[in-house]
Amino acid sequence: MVFSKLWLNYKKLDDTRKRILISCEHSLKESAAFEELQTAMKAMLPEAIVLWKSEVFDDDSYLIVLGIHPELDREEYTIAASLNITEICGGSEAGLLYGVFEFLKRTALAGGFIGFNAQAKPSQPLRMLDHWDNADGSIERGYSGKSFFFKDGELLVNERTVMYARLMASVGINGVVINNVNVRGSAKRLLTKDYADSLEELGELFGRYGIKLFICPDFAAPISVGGLDSADPLDERVINWWKECCASLFSRIPNLGGFLVKADSEGQPGPFAYGRDHADGANMLARAVAPFGGLVIWRCFVYNCAQDWRDLKTDRARSGYDNFMPLDGRFDDNVILQVKNGPMDFQVREPVHPLFGAMKHTKLMAEFQLAQEYTGQQKHVCWLVPMIKDILGFHTKHDMQDDRVSRTVCGVAAVANTGDDFCWTGSELAAANLYGYGRLLFNEDTDLDELAEEWAQLTFGDDEQVISAVSEILKGSHKAYEDYTVPLGLGWMCKPNHHYGPDPWGYEFDRWGTYNRADRNGIGVDRSPAGTGYSAQYAPEWAEVYGDIDRCPDDLLLFFHRVPYTHKLRGGKTVIQHIYDAHFEGYEQAEHFAALWASLKGRVDERTFKNVSERFEEQLNCAKEWRDIINTFFHRLSGIDDKQGRKIYN
Amino acid sequence: MVFSKLWLNYKKLDDTRKRILISCEHSLKESAAFEELQTAMKAMLPEAIVLWKSEVFDDDSYLIVLGIHPELDREEYTIAASLNITEICGGSEAGLLYGVFEFLKRTALAGGFIGFNAQAKPSQPLRMLDHWDNADGSIERGYSGKSFFFKDGELLVNERTVMYARLMASVGINGVVINNVNVRGSAKRLLTKDYADSLEELGELFGRYGIKLFICPDFAAPISVGGLDSADPLDERVINWWKECCASLFSRIPNLGGFLVKADSEGQPGPFAYGRDHADGANMLARAVAPFGGLVIWRCFVYNCAQDWRDLKTDRARSGYDNFMPLDGRFDDNVILQVKNGPMDFQVREPVHPLFGAMKHTKLMAEFQLAQEYTGQQKHVCWLVPMIKDILGFHTKHDMQDDRVSRTVCGVAAVANTGDDFCWTGSELAAANLYGYGRLLFNEDTDLDELAEEWAQLTFGDDEQVISAVSEILKGSHKAYEDYTVPLGLGWMCKPNHHYGPDPWGYEFDRWGTYNRADRNGIGVDRSPAGTGYSAQYAPEWAEVYGDIDRCPDDLLLFFHRVPYTHKLRGGKTVIQHIYDAHFEGYEQAEHFAALWASLKGRVDERTFKNVSERFEEQLNCAKEWRDIINTFFHRLSGIDDKQGRKIYN
Repeated sequence: MVFSKLWLNYKKLDDTRKRILISCEHSLKESAAFEELQTAMKAMLPEAIVLWKSEVFDDDSYLIVLGIHPELDREEYTIAASLNITEICGGSEAGLLYGVFEFLKRTALAGGFIGFNAQAKPSQPLRMLDHWDNADGSIERGYSGKSFFFKDGELLVNERTVMYARLMASVGINGVVINNVNVRGSAKRLLTKDYADSLEELGELFGRYGIKLFICPDFAAPISVGGLDSADPLDERVINWWKECCASLFSRIPNLGGFLVKADSEGQPGPFAYGRDHADGANMLARAVAPFGGLVIWRCFVYNCAQDWRDLKTDRARSGYDNFMPLDGRFDDNVILQVKNGPMDFQVREPVHPLFGAMKHTKLMAEFQLAQEYTGQQKHVCWLVPMIKDILGFHTKHDMQDDRVSRTVCGVAAVANTGDDFCWTGSELAAANLYGYGRLLFNEDTDLDELAEEWAQLTFGDDEQVISAVSEILKGSHKAYEDYTVPLGLGWMCKPNHHYGPDPWGYEFDRWGTYNRADRNGIGVDRSPAGTGYSAQYAPEWAEVYGDIDRCPDDLLLFFHRVPYTHKLRGGKTVIQHIYDAHFEGYEQAEHFAALWASLKGRVDERTFKNVSERFEEQLNCAKEWRDIINTFFHRLSGIDDKQGRKIYN
Repeated sequence: MVFSKLWLNYKKLDDTRKRILISCEHSLKESAAFEELQTAMKAMLPEAIVLWKSEVFDDDSYLIVLGIHPELDREEYTIAASLNITEICGGSEAGLLYGVFEFLKRTALAGGFIGFNAQAKPSQPLRMLDHWDNADGSIERGYSGKSFFFKDGELLVNERTVMYARLMASVGINGVVINNVNVRGSAKRLLTKDYADSLEELGELFGRYGIKLFICPDFAAPISVGGLDSADPLDERVINWWKECCASLFSRIPNLGGFLVKADSEGQPGPFAYGRDHADGANMLARAVAPFGGLVIWRCFVYNCAQDWRDLKTDRARSGYDNFMPLDGRFDDNVILQVKNGPMDFQVREPVHPLFGAMKHTKLMAEFQLAQEYTGQQKHVCWLVPMIKDILGFHTKHDMQDDRVSRTVCGVAAVANTGDDFCWTGSELAAANLYGYGRLLFNEDTDLDELAEEWAQLTFGDDEQVISAVSEILKGSHKAYEDYTVPLGLGWMCKPNHHYGPDPWGYEFDRWGTYNRADRNGIGVDRSPAGTGYSAQYAPEWAEVYGDIDRCPDDLLLFFHRVPYTHKLRGGKTVIQHIYDAHFEGYEQAEHFAALWASLKGRVDERTFKNVSERFEEQLNCAKEWRDIINTFFHRLSGIDDKQGRKIYN
């Protein structure tokens, strides 16, 4: 089991002190905060000894005082650091741990002890990672190797799991779902005593790092593991089965946070089979976990996945709102609806999901996807954090004090991009998504320039050229990817099933509700009130903007409207010329990134250099396919030449 | 192991005789001919006893005299049948067996003993079936269940294998390749003693039915099973390894006919890896099998499967000719080149392969595909026999006495459509391909109307309505399939990989050399001398016709030429209107076939009725997708409406 420490690979400080004193209550000596501090100090000052409070404090010592202050919020911390003494306080051991990580980060970035004061608490109460790991060890949409949670049906708890918990806690993740929302094979037995011992052990480990453990249950578990003939949420036998199941589960695993459920979605079982609705289903489970403080997180990704492409009326984009809005107010207090960031499925560009702000009497979470299913599968670099920040900061224009998405939710989740690869995320650069995601949820005002640089420095060291190049690559990567792939919010031009590489009509005549409707005259889907009416699902101000072809933002134009290729964008270019320009320029950007990386040879370690170089080679090959195939596709249809006369193949 | 007897399900005759006397030399009592006759007579006259020559011949007896006449060709037979006595002679036991099957067929069709004389010998010397069965039991491009030759690496010889040999012999197949040309897994060990016992047993069984056993070896076997570090055909060690391998193999398996080899094709190893050509590779193997009378059948399916779609010059259609024509005359006498019927890959319509007739100093075989990879996968009914007859009868216009394809080859092979399904071929109707294929090779002048009716009667019984409906379905099926799928010789509009269902641009931007180059102005690939020059690979007369847009046959127009949608076909219609008409009419034909079949309810047994009915349901669903998607595709591109105003979706 070889794995990197990512941004927690503490490096030696420029400091010659011989003693590090950590002073705290005896009870905190066993805490993760204390242990992390000890680990870090040993790495940062390898010549020094690390001692617990008893020793003398002199010029050759650095003193760190740890404490718990109940007047702080549970996850809040304060730091008062000077050149010789630092005091870190938390509202709980979790808050203290966050404070320790913040102190270590600043110290690492500065290369030595510095004076500063800090006080912080998380912007989001729930900051979750959803793993789509299967019990057999495979990962759905995993691009970083196999699962490190499961192997051949067994749940693993080992030194890699500890490293994982440290990494997650260091960026403030406080909830982790360990198994795939599509519950298959022996994952159905996570609810049974088969897994009780290992779940208990993993839960305890997570708890030490302030992380609640969540699992995905099979909604049909009363049948699949309970032996009943029904999973009807209103059937007394089913209700009792879940009650007993949860009583046993939560008593064995005190750190269990609850369930994440994908029901009636892409073939998963759900309440619809029994003529019940999603409130019936979610509330039944919620009542079973409520006595133990458990949560039921219920996904809103419910749509007709057997659509007829001939049908121009049905609009998959509408489905989340249409299915869940009528249920507003019917969910129990411990139910949270998990809503994808956009109405389709993690495309590189989608409008913000219309449910945010609309459901005023229901708890919501936002769901993102760090696993780069549609954004290059960790072969292409695509830093998603700016997009996540934009979406969380999006003003829904619903009638409320603070109408930003981040204020309409009680938490945020993201599909994890990790696996058992040495570097955790397939590409070394993809770890920036994991890092930045956590940081952003902890502090929604995080400056993205600083974030990129800080991650680069913590990961690759202090070389300014490396930090600057990596940070430039990260910051431009999403736009470049969007530019050379799918234009103007259209989405779904990827190859079916595996979703990698271009296939402009690969989804066009299929059952998934994902069409671009291109023809020789024009392109895009009319979702205005004259079309499918999707735009009307937004608050009035946005409904007007999105519904109006002249006011709709360019980058979403083809999501909301059908236009001729000669339609002028608000920026003045025609749609077709924008398509060509974006594809040529996006590809050039990718080339520029690859060259930037190549210039770092000798400045980052060879393994890392090779890891990223190989991926850039693939990214360029694939980006060229995207550029040429999409340009050719639109040229064949429109017959309009590129104004700049660049090469478009026949 | 439950399986049907297909056309050998002998039914009771309208005859009350009490004794059937079979008179022959003692040595023939053990022959397959004798056994088949005995089996058939017991089924056809269940009240009678079947005796060997000794008994008295009276009014209650029917006498059948079997004999071998050396003046006949080995596979030739004569029959002189009357109402009471029939004499059947063969040039060998194989010829005798064919005579017996002919006698039984005519008797079965007549429902009783009739008088007739017959003398026949096969049109084609080699009449082969190539099975793409893998050693693990799977079948590449198999649509009829699992393999009945292999299971979990084991070679099976059992009562199903006997039934298979009887079926094949009954239609004159005299060579069978039992494993996939892509040699994977333990199939590589067919050359070793691991399989010697079972191959010997299978070879013996086949031999009894006049069938030579062939296997596909791994060209890299000297490495993969021999432990050498090279498979270079000019390396002495390699040459010796094959010599020893073949000596041991043929001594254990006297009925081994030789090898079928796919080399340097779609990832298979071959001589190119060592800078050798295909004559080097084939001759090396040929010399290893020559001492044992063995053959090396060498496939010409060699092309660049990593083509760049941007490249308009490279033409996959050219590759067979370009690769092999320069080698004409260099192959040993016991090498036969196996050439696919067309230059691409078993599309529903392709021109005849230009190598036929062109290679005057090399033995060729024609290869067809009964497995309906591109023709509906045994879910759609598509009787391929008329197409095979057309191709074999095609005049190549090369300078020779008889320039038909059938006369330019020394044999014909087809990829088998069988598996371990109850009815052998997935669909009950697909067995008509297996039956008709064999019959046609035996007698190239076979009347197709009679063939369809005779198969229907032997399979489904004497009900005239059944025979007439089935025969109508079969005869119209290929045109209907062609009409509702891919127009005018264009090919390759199927979904990638599995090749089922429509995806007009699924192959357009891929590496397989299979492009339609459709755009808003026109469609088709220019293979005239002004284009890729493929048309010039034919004999001058055809080169002129195919190269001339005004003389090229309509059904191949888009294979050879690129034309605007408004181009008028020789029949007077525009290309676009032809596309619409064909798709609407083809679908209507499919509906008509389904209705015809539905009208047979109660007239064929329930299992068969259900088997075909379910497939017609799928065929109609899929044909509707083909019709609408292809029409929509061309309408989106061309913008031209259907003159008849039928529904084309947006």
